[in-house]
Amino acid sequence: MRTYINNINNLEDGSIIEIDGWVQEIRKIKKLLFLIVRDNTGSVQVTVKDNMVKNYDSIYNISRESVIKVSGKLNKKSISKSGVEILANEIIILNTAETPLPMGVIDLVDVDFDTRLNNRFIDLRKPENLIIFKFESELLFGIREYMNKNNFIEVHTPKIVAAATEGGADLFPVQYFEKRAYLNQSPQLYKEILMSSGFDRVFEVGPAFRAEKENTVRHLNEFTSIDIEMSFSDDETVMRMLENAIAYSVNRADSILGKELKGLGYSIEEVRPPFPRIEYSELINYLNDNGFKLNFGDDFSPEAMKFVSKKYNGFYFITKWPKDLRPFYTMPDDTNRNVTRSFDLQLRDIEVCSGAQRIHDYNMLENSFNEKGLNKNNFEFYIKAFKYGMPPHAGWGLGLERLVMNLLNLSNVRESTLFPRDRSRLSP
Amino acid sequence: MRTYINNINNLEDGSIIEIDGWVQEIRKIKKLLFLIVRDNTGSVQVTVKDNMVKNYDSIYNISRESVIKVSGKLNKKSISKSGVEILANEIIILNTAETPLPMGVIDLVDVDFDTRLNNRFIDLRKPENLIIFKFESELLFGIREYMNKNNFIEVHTPKIVAAATEGGADLFPVQYFEKRAYLNQSPQLYKEILMSSGFDRVFEVGPAFRAEKENTVRHLNEFTSIDIEMSFSDDETVMRMLENAIAYSVNRADSILGKELKGLGYSIEEVRPPFPRIEYSELINYLNDNGFKLNFGDDFSPEAMKFVSKKYNGFYFITKWPKDLRPFYTMPDDTNRNVTRSFDLQLRDIEVCSGAQRIHDYNMLENSFNEKGLNKNNFEFYIKAFKYGMPPHAGWGLGLERLVMNLLNLSNVRESTLFPRDRSRLSP
Repeated sequence: MRTYINNINNLEDGSIIEIDGWVQEIRKIKKLLFLIVRDNTGSVQVTVKDNMVKNYDSIYNISRESVIKVSGKLNKKSISKSGVEILANEIIILNTAETPLPMGVIDLVDVDFDTRLNNRFIDLRKPENLIIFKFESELLFGIREYMNKNNFIEVHTPKIVAAATEGGADLFPVQYFEKRAYLNQSPQLYKEILMSSGFDRVFEVGPAFRAEKENTVRHLNEFTSIDIEMSFSDDETVMRMLENAIAYSVNRADSILGKELKGLGYSIEEVRPPFPRIEYSELINYLNDNGFKLNFGDDFSPEAMKFVSKKYNGFYFITKWPKDLRPFYTMPDDTNRNVTRSFDLQLRDIEVCSGAQRIHDYNMLENSFNEKGLNKNNFEFYIKAFKYGMPPHAGWGLGLERLVMNLLNLSNVRESTLFPRDRSRLSP
Repeated sequence: MRTYINNINNLEDGSIIEIDGWVQEIRKIKKLLFLIVRDNTGSVQVTVKDNMVKNYDSIYNISRESVIKVSGKLNKKSISKSGVEILANEIIILNTAETPLPMGVIDLVDVDFDTRLNNRFIDLRKPENLIIFKFESELLFGIREYMNKNNFIEVHTPKIVAAATEGGADLFPVQYFEKRAYLNQSPQLYKEILMSSGFDRVFEVGPAFRAEKENTVRHLNEFTSIDIEMSFSDDETVMRMLENAIAYSVNRADSILGKELKGLGYSIEEVRPPFPRIEYSELINYLNDNGFKLNFGDDFSPEAMKFVSKKYNGFYFITKWPKDLRPFYTMPDDTNRNVTRSFDLQLRDIEVCSGAQRIHDYNMLENSFNEKGLNKNNFEFYIKAFKYGMPPHAGWGLGLERLVMNLLNLSNVRESTLFPRDRSRLSP
């Protein structure tokens, strides 16, 4: 039976164990061979003596990153750095790595990001990279657990669509048999249709596609969107749902992986809701009081947000955005029709989530199409659902990779994306 | 505070409660008005008397499927059919439905499937349709829980790709800026790359796209694929993982939703692993003994599978498929190179999952490309991962909608798909 390396410490000295993994380092002292073997949970020294394994000569000449199966005796009083070693009885070579490697796994040589991404299969072997995706997986599991407990139905809506969600720009065209179609920018319109269907609460985790030409450290052309929509609800209710889901899932993931994260140089702060809520116009005033020159209706520059994040250095909401800065389906504020019942969730200077109360009245929606210069005929499949019993509803969309990037203080969203798609990258 | 309708029975007679929902039925006996109000959990009678609500006249003229909020007193000794009613004190009309409805929610009139799908937002209001997606959601949650407990990392691999997973056919082309790209047919190649990265165990739930022209009750051009891949593992190990995941998740979903499912005419049988394993060649012989005329290498016709399902009427595996019927990455059998270490999981006569031990040796993979007439240069990003330390691995891909279709005995896979995409349908 295979033992994962992080379980070795729980076993008794002298146990006969079997591990599977990659040969990370090789040291030779005369005829004594020391291999550092790595699996997804850690690494351990394997000591190989001439007379102990049949195929000693092949093992002696093994290349780094080859895959082996080791059987041997656990020595917990080893003089090795970690105090633990496996004295090999049998080593099976499962696959031999060619030399030289296109890049190293443990070498400290700096490799540029393009080389890393071109050789992502090796780059991801680095424990400090693998842990990002363990964290992402646990984080998402926590979010799902929270949503499931709160009676959200997980749904899957189509990614090949006939119309643009947010207007005609930034769409990737698809040839769908004889028809022209697009990759969906967001599940927004489908989530809303499901509110009309009485699904009450839905959430979806799936790819979203944006043909934006911007190629920054924060942009991906394909990303994982976590979306919820909730009936008989409003902006404030879904903001609470959001902050509680994030607190639950981040704290849960940290309780599972915190030690491993810390060992690899990451630290997660405890998340404590409620998050501060700041109105857009307050923030404009605050920035203008501090030397910025902003008008109502302007978006915030990265510099402005850097400044704001000195005051708010955790999660916070920016609420009541101007109508012109929000999509057509956003509900205007009851008292001031120039602003909307919308919000962004920020982590320090970066937006990670966008949401709002939505318009549920058919006529108001029709006007909003007109105001935004959109042709409602392209949205027939969507607006029909508003004519025959659409309840009030609200929701949000959260970018998974961006959230992870910011929680772990990564410098590029590509670090929290297995195989990023950007302006110039379509492979691997 | 809102009460969901299925919770009403837990409240005391005489409680003042508030419900939100759709006006499903309207009966009028002189000035007495009886509304059946539906939410996502059930329906209840609301009794409206002339002198009890301010806006009695508007309520009296309300249209079916309008959305309302009702406050009133719970009467558990009602003479209504269910014995329960709400005596309305206040009714707020949240949204009025236009008349006539494009199709009814509770009318027993038969509506053809196209009309249903064209008006899917209403079609999904039927409790017997909504429950399919509640079941799908709980089923998937159970599978994820099982995978999470077994240390699988949930991953998201790109859907826009530069190369075909399974050869050049059946691909939807995408215009990716200046480049030609495709929608991914399966996460297969990416899952395998992650094995080379030492992720050890991954699973993914995401859309998969097949430009197949077949337009049957079992085919979708976009479906939800549940995929796993597992290192240092083999076909038998991942078959056990599959049967246990299915048993856990089906039985869990049934324990949560069984009563509701039964009330709506669905019944789920308890799933008990291990599932029978039948070799492909055994099945060929069995069919030939029973009047079919099949040669080694033939695929099974729907008629043949109907016949087989008389003998095997639950889940069963068909193993050791001929090489010619499986994709290039499938591991040949150790003893008979014409068959592979592959399997299909069947539920009665329908295939729901396909899997195998994969090739992990670079030279064997290169030969397999040649044998299948594929150009390995198109797969550079993939085969590179086999050169520098690829462990043995195995995995499978499971179609979510097909599994649900068969578990619930639905006659068409579109019934278990919210917004199906097929040869002719791209909307809603």
